[in-house]
Amino acid sequence: MLTLPVYADVAAAAGRIATVAHKTPVLRSRTVDEATGAQVFFKCENFQRMGAFKFRGAFNALSQFDERQRQAGVVTFSSGNHAQAVALSARLLGIPATIVMPLDAPAAKVAATRGYGATIVTYDRYREDREQIGRELAQQRGLTLIPPYDHPHVIAGQGTAAKELIEEVGELDALYVCLGGGGLLSGSALAARALAPACKVYGVEPEAGNDGQRSLRSGTLVSIDTPATIADGAQTQHLGQYTFEIIRRDVDDIVTASDDELIECMRFFAERMKMVVEPTGCLSFAAARRADIAGKRVGIIVSGGNVDLARYGAWLAG
Amino acid sequence: MLTLPVYADVAAAAGRIATVAHKTPVLRSRTVDEATGAQVFFKCENFQRMGAFKFRGAFNALSQFDERQRQAGVVTFSSGNHAQAVALSARLLGIPATIVMPLDAPAAKVAATRGYGATIVTYDRYREDREQIGRELAQQRGLTLIPPYDHPHVIAGQGTAAKELIEEVGELDALYVCLGGGGLLSGSALAARALAPACKVYGVEPEAGNDGQRSLRSGTLVSIDTPATIADGAQTQHLGQYTFEIIRRDVDDIVTASDDELIECMRFFAERMKMVVEPTGCLSFAAARRADIAGKRVGIIVSGGNVDLARYGAWLAG
Repeated sequence: MLTLPVYADVAAAAGRIATVAHKTPVLRSRTVDEATGAQVFFKCENFQRMGAFKFRGAFNALSQFDERQRQAGVVTFSSGNHAQAVALSARLLGIPATIVMPLDAPAAKVAATRGYGATIVTYDRYREDREQIGRELAQQRGLTLIPPYDHPHVIAGQGTAAKELIEEVGELDALYVCLGGGGLLSGSALAARALAPACKVYGVEPEAGNDGQRSLRSGTLVSIDTPATIADGAQTQHLGQYTFEIIRRDVDDIVTASDDELIECMRFFAERMKMVVEPTGCLSFAAARRADIAGKRVGIIVSGGNVDLARYGAWLAG
Repeated sequence: MLTLPVYADVAAAAGRIATVAHKTPVLRSRTVDEATGAQVFFKCENFQRMGAFKFRGAFNALSQFDERQRQAGVVTFSSGNHAQAVALSARLLGIPATIVMPLDAPAAKVAATRGYGATIVTYDRYREDREQIGRELAQQRGLTLIPPYDHPHVIAGQGTAAKELIEEVGELDALYVCLGGGGLLSGSALAARALAPACKVYGVEPEAGNDGQRSLRSGTLVSIDTPATIADGAQTQHLGQYTFEIIRRDVDDIVTASDDELIECMRFFAERMKMVVEPTGCLSFAAARRADIAGKRVGIIVSGGNVDLARYGAWLAG
């Protein structure tokens, strides 16, 4: 039996991260409001430290380590934003960090993670299981494993973004959140249920990887092969045990967006809102803009802005 | 004898634009603070309505029209941000707007300006003088001419960005502002002198067009050919009469930045701060980052984010 995190955990997380995380801005766009007939509020986690919401969950988890855990250190597996979030949180808290990354991870991400002082352990993503390597390192070296999404402290931390949004703008009719493993979506749902009980909560997955949608609709946790999508933050194979339980209870629906829609949103964000948003960060708005939201107050979590400049430039140039 | 605008005009402008302009966010970057040893505050006018500070000055000017002027309408000449700023302000105030634009102005800019309901009058930039066309239209049709920078109401309006910045973050040791015709720089200087008397105020021009620097240093208004630079918002041939008088009195120095430096800054803003900044908007930071600002509190006006996506994408892709 899992003990699921609750809204009080989100509120406690907000206190833990208050002095280190950015209270990110909520932006509006008259163009969007006019086109949709809605009032749309963009919670811009691309302006968060290390460029994505992941810092919230990682810092909330690591800041609860006891003395023994702090000294031994943290381990995680990720080639993406969670790796940098754990590395940065560990540095801020003086905790040694070990990150399991694939041999072929982008050099820039490896460098950024190492730049925060973390030790990198590489693996062959075609022959080895990163989760098993993480677990073994944890056992052998007494490290505490903080996985990318399926952990109560991570979920509670991620929920602080939606909490800030609703506290700043007031009740919402709908909230759109990107969905990979479900840390951000489940945390956001906890916050929305407590602070805006009438708010519909929607998860948005890449079209190529709708395991979450299928899990929600079938009531059983569906696993898929790693989906081919430019939304690298949502290239997950399945929801977690914690995140699925919260999502099936508190999320109203899960919809999808295509890569073409993500690029269109990326261009819109750059051209009209002057901000850089990574493909995964475009999922929520890609779904909201084609939904019937006229007359509603709609929250959009823009999850992050970490994207390789060369690829990003090519997408913009079109 | 010119009657120069004073800080009270900036304060009055702030009241006029309060309900229509965005109070743009002030962003920070730990990377920048660590690299410079300074505390750097970015006032992000790329998030302003229509994507640049120009809205402030245009709205401040048009909102002071009397009934006759409102009915007759406004005219201006600009192929850039001032055109859209006047067109948008006119629409908001119910004033007919006529914009004189070159025949070869980018289609996107013409469309955006027309989208605000303005009438476009085109001219041949190689054979005709846009200022003369503007003046003739004003005389023939009884329109009020609001030029891009050399007007007390425009200057006072542009000064509200620096006013907001200093009121939000407190006194500064230095303020860096891009310089084309000098509307933003002279308005910023009025605000800084009143609110942060010890603050050094620096203008930053494109290397290819240092007429402002030469004017300040020689004490006479220097005119040059239209400079070849990617900073299209600063492709001016000379300062204005009002702006030069304020700049020579209140600005400490004028420095320059190369196009390569602007591209480097554009990439930094995208990669690390997740925001889209047009070349002209990079001038201020390009100069500040190579100055000795260690230990200082430094304000940077990021003037705008309107840039053709194809060119921008190519600059980022490198």
